[in-house]
Amino acid sequence: MKKIVLIRHGESLWNQENRFTGWTDVDLSENGYIQAKKAGEILKKNGYNFDVAFTSLLKRAIKTLHIVLEELDHLWIPENKSWHLNERFYGALQGLNKLETADKYGADQVYKWRRDPDEEPPAVTKEDPRYPGNDLRYQELKEAELPLSENLNDTVARVLPYWQSEIVPALVENKHVIISAHGNSLRALIKYIDNLTNEEVIALEIPTGIPLVYELDDDLNKIRHYYLK
Amino acid sequence: MKKIVLIRHGESLWNQENRFTGWTDVDLSENGYIQAKKAGEILKKNGYNFDVAFTSLLKRAIKTLHIVLEELDHLWIPENKSWHLNERFYGALQGLNKLETADKYGADQVYKWRRDPDEEPPAVTKEDPRYPGNDLRYQELKEAELPLSENLNDTVARVLPYWQSEIVPALVENKHVIISAHGNSLRALIKYIDNLTNEEVIALEIPTGIPLVYELDDDLNKIRHYYLK
Repeated sequence: MKKIVLIRHGESLWNQENRFTGWTDVDLSENGYIQAKKAGEILKKNGYNFDVAFTSLLKRAIKTLHIVLEELDHLWIPENKSWHLNERFYGALQGLNKLETADKYGADQVYKWRRDPDEEPPAVTKEDPRYPGNDLRYQELKEAELPLSENLNDTVARVLPYWQSEIVPALVENKHVIISAHGNSLRALIKYIDNLTNEEVIALEIPTGIPLVYELDDDLNKIRHYYLK
Repeated sequence: MKKIVLIRHGESLWNQENRFTGWTDVDLSENGYIQAKKAGEILKKNGYNFDVAFTSLLKRAIKTLHIVLEELDHLWIPENKSWHLNERFYGALQGLNKLETADKYGADQVYKWRRDPDEEPPAVTKEDPRYPGNDLRYQELKEAELPLSENLNDTVARVLPYWQSEIVPALVENKHVIISAHGNSLRALIKYIDNLTNEEVIALEIPTGIPLVYELDDDLNKIRHYYLK
């Protein structure tokens, strides 16, 4: 039986301000730090340790990972960071307040943008400072990989190759894996691991800073999953 | 012209207590955190940024790196951790107070153990909890790689292969490199880069938490070096 621990970063400053974040590199809130530390404590209390960690290129996920690993006294394990695990790219919604956006476009539309895997938010242009092609950290991506907007299926499409090429081999070697990532990159991953329908993934919300354990069989089919609280 | 930034971790709790540390995984002192943050600020003020980071498997170096990268808003760069960059393994001296050790063995002998590249401290046995073979993080090392004690030449001998195989290729690609490591693993590296004699390396002491810049030509010969203060 293989176990993998998923953790959505602790609360960010924009979670707090109720703004669409996406690839904007927003820091943890004070509460986010506390959540991350608590997640580390819970993992420690339950005897977890890890051989390898995966995270995104965004500081809220990276810092959550560091805080957890420090709590476990496991800062020394290899840490792999990739844009493939970044939050869903929210296009031109990034930075906007969710309530104000609902006033403008209607609550239904905003709900769809947030949850419906087929619904794509308005795109940014390539001149927009929010376009990842204007950010140094994405300079090695091909143009086709740089999103203008993403629906959840788009996110699934770039999370999965990374899962297959980097994470699955670690699981096959029976390594203990932790992934510190984001609400939607984790939903994307779970949609695949758990073979969820669109309806099921629409209903799926992952809380910040709570370790989520997936137990998988040798073929990486899910046995069960549970939160560590 | 290529630039590489070396940084010795901020002051550790055992630097403060004047104890031999070696591979003991001692945390930063409060002053150590402050030094690391200041190092990040100085690098930022001088316009430094990095493409890739290298550090040891010891938290005082890893945390120094994280603090520096956070200050530079560059937590997202790849971070490579390796035992090759660990502090010199101080054998059976690890944990002992330096003054008490001087009382017992004489100040001359302690000075030699600390500084003379040919002088090897007393070894640990394989039953000793300080023997790295008893630490999970070194489980993938071959027995011949697990030290019982190291003089500086031994440290040079395991720092260099890592320099050649991992760090040089990054420099050849003109990547901006930062190495967060330890007093003696950095002395080992500098002994090689700077082609120092035994006498010169005996006199070399690297302060904690001060970025040390090496400018190298295309053949990786030193042009000059200086501290950023």
